[in-house]
Amino acid sequence: MNNKYVYLFREGKASMRDLLGGKGANLCEMTNLGLPVPPGFTITTEACNEYYSNNQNPPEGLWDQVWTALADVEATTGKRFGDKVNPLLLSVRSGAKFSMPGMMDTVLNLGLNDDTVGVLAANTQNERFAWDCYRRFVQMFGDVVLEVEHSDFEEILEIAKEKQGVKFDSELSAESLKWMVSEYKKKIESKTGIPFPVDPKIQLELSVLAVFRSWNNDRANFYRTINNIPHDIGTAVNVQVMVFGNMGADSGTGVAFTRSPSSGEHALYGEYLMNAQGEDVVAGIRTPNPIATLARENLEIYKQFESICKLLESHYRDMQDIEFTIERGKLNILQTRNGKRTASASIRVAVDLFHEGLITKEEAVMRIEPEQLDHLLHRSMDTNAKYEVLAKGLPASPGAASGKIVFSADEAESLGNAGEKVILVRTETTPDDIHGILAAQGILTSRGGMTSHAAVVSRHMGKPAVCGCDALKINVAQGLIEIEGVEYHQGTMISIDGSTGRVIKGEVPMVDPQLSAEFKELLGWADEISRLRVKANADSPTEATNARNFGAVGIGLTRTEHMFMHPERIPIVQEMILAQTLEEREVALAKLLPMQEEDFYGILKAMQGLPVTIRLLDPPLHEFLPHSEELVVEITKLRVLNNDPDTLHQKEALLSKVRALSELNPMLGHRGCRLGVSYPEITVMQARAIFQAGARLVKEGYDIHPEVMIPLIIGKEEFLMMRKLVDDTAELVMREQNVRIHYQVGNMIEVPRAALLADEIGKVADFFSFGTNDLTQMTMGLSRDDAQGKFLPVYLEKKLMKTDPFIVLDREGVGKLIDMAVKLGRSANPDISLGICGEHGGEPNSVEFCHLVGLDYVSCSPFRVPIARLAAAQAAIRHKD
Amino acid sequence: MNNKYVYLFREGKASMRDLLGGKGANLCEMTNLGLPVPPGFTITTEACNEYYSNNQNPPEGLWDQVWTALADVEATTGKRFGDKVNPLLLSVRSGAKFSMPGMMDTVLNLGLNDDTVGVLAANTQNERFAWDCYRRFVQMFGDVVLEVEHSDFEEILEIAKEKQGVKFDSELSAESLKWMVSEYKKKIESKTGIPFPVDPKIQLELSVLAVFRSWNNDRANFYRTINNIPHDIGTAVNVQVMVFGNMGADSGTGVAFTRSPSSGEHALYGEYLMNAQGEDVVAGIRTPNPIATLARENLEIYKQFESICKLLESHYRDMQDIEFTIERGKLNILQTRNGKRTASASIRVAVDLFHEGLITKEEAVMRIEPEQLDHLLHRSMDTNAKYEVLAKGLPASPGAASGKIVFSADEAESLGNAGEKVILVRTETTPDDIHGILAAQGILTSRGGMTSHAAVVSRHMGKPAVCGCDALKINVAQGLIEIEGVEYHQGTMISIDGSTGRVIKGEVPMVDPQLSAEFKELLGWADEISRLRVKANADSPTEATNARNFGAVGIGLTRTEHMFMHPERIPIVQEMILAQTLEEREVALAKLLPMQEEDFYGILKAMQGLPVTIRLLDPPLHEFLPHSEELVVEITKLRVLNNDPDTLHQKEALLSKVRALSELNPMLGHRGCRLGVSYPEITVMQARAIFQAGARLVKEGYDIHPEVMIPLIIGKEEFLMMRKLVDDTAELVMREQNVRIHYQVGNMIEVPRAALLADEIGKVADFFSFGTNDLTQMTMGLSRDDAQGKFLPVYLEKKLMKTDPFIVLDREGVGKLIDMAVKLGRSANPDISLGICGEHGGEPNSVEFCHLVGLDYVSCSPFRVPIARLAAAQAAIRHKD
Repeated sequence: MNNKYVYLFREGKASMRDLLGGKGANLCEMTNLGLPVPPGFTITTEACNEYYSNNQNPPEGLWDQVWTALADVEATTGKRFGDKVNPLLLSVRSGAKFSMPGMMDTVLNLGLNDDTVGVLAANTQNERFAWDCYRRFVQMFGDVVLEVEHSDFEEILEIAKEKQGVKFDSELSAESLKWMVSEYKKKIESKTGIPFPVDPKIQLELSVLAVFRSWNNDRANFYRTINNIPHDIGTAVNVQVMVFGNMGADSGTGVAFTRSPSSGEHALYGEYLMNAQGEDVVAGIRTPNPIATLARENLEIYKQFESICKLLESHYRDMQDIEFTIERGKLNILQTRNGKRTASASIRVAVDLFHEGLITKEEAVMRIEPEQLDHLLHRSMDTNAKYEVLAKGLPASPGAASGKIVFSADEAESLGNAGEKVILVRTETTPDDIHGILAAQGILTSRGGMTSHAAVVSRHMGKPAVCGCDALKINVAQGLIEIEGVEYHQGTMISIDGSTGRVIKGEVPMVDPQLSAEFKELLGWADEISRLRVKANADSPTEATNARNFGAVGIGLTRTEHMFMHPERIPIVQEMILAQTLEEREVALAKLLPMQEEDFYGILKAMQGLPVTIRLLDPPLHEFLPHSEELVVEITKLRVLNNDPDTLHQKEALLSKVRALSELNPMLGHRGCRLGVSYPEITVMQARAIFQAGARLVKEGYDIHPEVMIPLIIGKEEFLMMRKLVDDTAELVMREQNVRIHYQVGNMIEVPRAALLADEIGKVADFFSFGTNDLTQMTMGLSRDDAQGKFLPVYLEKKLMKTDPFIVLDREGVGKLIDMAVKLGRSANPDISLGICGEHGGEPNSVEFCHLVGLDYVSCSPFRVPIARLAAAQAAIRHKD
Repeated sequence: MNNKYVYLFREGKASMRDLLGGKGANLCEMTNLGLPVPPGFTITTEACNEYYSNNQNPPEGLWDQVWTALADVEATTGKRFGDKVNPLLLSVRSGAKFSMPGMMDTVLNLGLNDDTVGVLAANTQNERFAWDCYRRFVQMFGDVVLEVEHSDFEEILEIAKEKQGVKFDSELSAESLKWMVSEYKKKIESKTGIPFPVDPKIQLELSVLAVFRSWNNDRANFYRTINNIPHDIGTAVNVQVMVFGNMGADSGTGVAFTRSPSSGEHALYGEYLMNAQGEDVVAGIRTPNPIATLARENLEIYKQFESICKLLESHYRDMQDIEFTIERGKLNILQTRNGKRTASASIRVAVDLFHEGLITKEEAVMRIEPEQLDHLLHRSMDTNAKYEVLAKGLPASPGAASGKIVFSADEAESLGNAGEKVILVRTETTPDDIHGILAAQGILTSRGGMTSHAAVVSRHMGKPAVCGCDALKINVAQGLIEIEGVEYHQGTMISIDGSTGRVIKGEVPMVDPQLSAEFKELLGWADEISRLRVKANADSPTEATNARNFGAVGIGLTRTEHMFMHPERIPIVQEMILAQTLEEREVALAKLLPMQEEDFYGILKAMQGLPVTIRLLDPPLHEFLPHSEELVVEITKLRVLNNDPDTLHQKEALLSKVRALSELNPMLGHRGCRLGVSYPEITVMQARAIFQAGARLVKEGYDIHPEVMIPLIIGKEEFLMMRKLVDDTAELVMREQNVRIHYQVGNMIEVPRAALLADEIGKVADFFSFGTNDLTQMTMGLSRDDAQGKFLPVYLEKKLMKTDPFIVLDREGVGKLIDMAVKLGRSANPDISLGICGEHGGEPNSVEFCHLVGLDYVSCSPFRVPIARLAAAQAAIRHKD
């Protein structure tokens, strides 16, 4: 007994997408709703899969089932396939579970041959129409099924137009079309060695197999890869009675959305063309009419269509994208599916559908793709503006910006402070550039990937950035960039679009982000639903305020090193590093103390009532010193010229300190809490700054919740040593100031060993925050800066990795370690608070993982807080017990 | 009811070391054996511990128990403490569970006061003797118990000698001594405010407490830390009747070993001095006599002593170190303990004791400290030679060598090839220096720790090395080194002792290592006992042969990159790296193929019958190119001088490639299997070289077992890709050559993710080898090169880590991961072979861990194979179920 491979439309339903594909399932559903769907049947995806598993042979019994179904269609329509009186014409279309528009093959007008074409001409009283159908069919069949080159047919078409002396296909006469059909058939026979099949059943069999084959063509494969569609689910094949929109003035074709796909407004939205086929609309020779005018042209049809739209929308409980054809005054519905829409339309539709009682809040929340929100949170280019694209890089940080080209952070800062708009253009950025990034409108780099320093920092700050734009040749010495041979000097106005990666000439008008009422309403629902809380990473009062506005319920990570990078502080920081004795170092630290205190004062104040996690100094000290190569160049010059021994000596001394601090693998070097172990006085200064700021705020009546976070912990002993420094300093300051401050001390888990020993460390820590950037680097032995843009793309291309682990958290490896640490930590300390900071905290798939593994919160860039809130709610819905 | 804090010697036994300390337990044991031990009692370690836990107060009931025990001693001896007729004199000595020679305090001649000193003079008819005893007692008591400065007493002594006009203490008259006692007492009263205690019971109480206190003095604390003795076990106190070796010609004192502590030869070995106390032997004013001459002096005493030695040795079943005192013709045994001995004596004694039927093979194996063997496996300096030590560095690789100073690897090689002996002197070494290290007799560096590149490579090659010798200023430009202001030019002969870290002027006579028959016999027993097999890491046929001679049962790691570093190959390797296209790269690879084939041919042949694990190319490619800073210097010079545009251009091009390949964290960069993923042709070349070499050997009749090891694996997919390259190449070569080769393909586990996914990877791998060097670096987030000699010492000093995790495997963290991987790997593939390669494989504590966790083998440097074999056997014995 064979499987059932063929379903008449009346035998299927919408829930059978796996078996019948999206298109087929919806055709079935509409048929059963009593809608005017041309009859037909669907060959299952299972048949396609068996075709592949059986060495590209159709499964046994398939054709018998097809002929049985076909007989049913013939009975319904009263027409017969290949009949010389009333021939049935069919379309054969692919239709996978997930929409893959244009990727697979279609054959229309199937059933035509030298006999039936005449009948069609007679029945329609339109010889040209019939031969045009036939001509299209032969070409399509020849191309798709028999794999004759498309250009072979184009050539004949050109000859025919030349012979007849016309310019457009539509001008070709019936005679010309007849000639073309005969030429096409000759060409096919000469290319394939077999005559064009005249038997419609053979045509149908071959077409079905061609659609199966097209599942595996290059572009379909590529499309699935980039859209994360599995490669092994196969396509269904829909065989359906042909209807023609080009049978005269009472025929037509169109497509409509039940709501606006760009704004979500509740009104029919679409276009149609009378006396035309779908491909005419696409070809763009005639301009289609807005759907509303159909009411004037044919009110009855319009009303019928309108009520069908209403029915389909309430049936499917979502905005629909519907294709229809009117054949000689009769409306046919050819397809319905959930309509694609912009981010703002998505939100509007979901919120409206809830208020219309069609869906629940949970469903509304599930309707939005979290990543889509990103576009709503940044400025964008005015879509009506015209502009010239100079080059394209990676869309590294969304939003758009215009400004004058500058090449250094200092310049960006001085011009920025003077009120100029600038774009900071660099080969790549380093932590030294922070003040420049802060001052610039946007960042453009010629090197680096989606998680390069420039990209990460820009996203974090909500600055637009285009990275890895390799068409860009930067010549800092001459103060210009070159793109395809054209030079653009410093000070030239350019624009970048960080959402698309485009680099644009001149200034472009911008549109500010508009957070709609629906947006806020939806995120409110999300917060009601989610278990996971969302905090933000913020290093300044401005960022903290931003985060709060985006709904963050605390700061999960304040990095203190950015504060050290301010140009007026760098000399003091360097003084501290170059100190020869503890006393010298303490002098420098004493100068930094009031500055740090002000930093913390501002952030704690902005976040009053909410927790603020402050991470102690993390990067290796050499990041605050000049690079050794720069010094080597200066020293070599001084040596060769031999005219300034004093400067030479001084530079040599500096170089020797830089070398002493230089590290082979700085990521695994003298950083994080290791700095505090070596120089406890740095930790004490930072702790004092935190608690002095806190004491002031408490006295001023603010409710503050500082949480001190120790980075790079690998064992209990070092955590205890660091904790003691913090606790002792806190106690001292609180006694000095005579106030009590509620605070916590916890640590980052970013080194595998800390995860492995989370039970030991958990006994003495108040919280853990998983630093998944570094944890990924160490667990996978993968330096982010060295991997991305270098060998990681090869891994993705060769499918040795599914996704970039710095973007989507590696659940199998890194996730296993986190899961282990969560269990160990909670077993040792049931009250421990567990969160994640770092880029993954704002990535929906990773947020889902955080929900599953039982974390208390995620912390991400302020601009990704809404995305994380939505993702957290979706995770809660998806994994409701 | 109080605990029993005091044990008479007849109440204790040897097994009570925890409670009575080593010395006390042995005094008890000897007493019960009926040996002539002066009577006494031991105050327990428990009393000491309660003293500390009770805020430095003695436990209740302690003194009552002391007085009861003292009464017993009085009864035994017929003397009475403080008695004016027959006074009892006591010694009070510390004695912890583990010997801590000289670290804690002792008080002798206790019980003397102005009354009893006269009785002693009368009874011994020696006034000077009595007052000398008293003088020493007051000084010792003042110093140790009352904490009066030692120099205060020295001052008085000097005055006394001056007054009497003599030079030595021994020349002081009874009158002078009397004067000194009175001055000492005055000084004590003026310093402490209380008079010197005349009541012997008070003297005893205070002395016992002083010994308790001395457990916690600085030098005892330090000694425990460096010898890994717990700080919380306390010391016992031994109170014993004084015997005097200085009571005339029929008195004397001495110490003897039951076998030679340097060779292990079975004969009494020691020395004695008549009419002397122990401290006279130490002071070195008189030369003691060899123990054998005692037979001539007093045959009866000698025979008694000889038979006691025999009894003690067979009773303790080990070579004994025995202290004795003859008081007026009567032999007293004051101490026995297991004698310290050299490595060769250790082995000889253990093997002899087995053959004498005193111990089992297991016991013999347990008697040897594995690390001791290291000294036996390398050349050493002739101990009779005289030499001048110039500086001291770290004893980085054992053995000694002499040679001329050279500063570059190339120079070392060319002089070495010309037959010269050279010492390669470098700030630090890099993989580029391998050929120089190979050619040199030894390595001396001014930077780097025990696991720096120079140290690791030298130990691996069995070359002596002294590292991190910071007294050394290297001036390569002028071709000299400077040590404390003295210059030593290139070509000067120096010597280094890698076992002690000494750098020595000129050439020193050397002694070759001698592997005794006992050594081999013992290791044979070890192999019978152990479960863990021992393989070696070897990169050349010579090393492989070496390893085999040391008992390795295979090669666990052959690094192929060292083969790439040969000076004649480097240009070809660079050609391969700089290749712009696949074709260019394949041309270079084709040149390397025959060279690699020869490498593998040699090693496989040397190890025929045994498995050889060959690791594919591991380091990042930039390691084979010049350093960017060197290039920057050259380019800057060329630019400033502006006279050679062609060279400038060429250097700039090279620099740009070096920069393109440069990495921020090369350890986590483009290396290991990632090279094979990017350039499969490199993997194919290496596989071809292995199997072509194998095919030749099979045809020549050799039995070979190559195992191809893929480095840096982090997932199943990449392993499968690499495995396929190897399998396909193997199949191809075997078909071409028409032979079958039995081979395996497995991978390193050196990245945490591989350990976490060991079940997935284990399904498709034939073996795992844990690369614990890198696994430690990544699990702990600790770059070895950056940590050692920089912040790691701070961690050890502050006790945040117990040991250097690159020397002793971190069981808690890294070990947990290995344990997990072993279980996951075996669960997925019960036949999988599991081993470890890297430095830990030859370190006894880590070898024990490998045994416990259930690995099949360890692999280490050839020169550490005997150590690992012994450690493996000891682990098996220690953890017998």
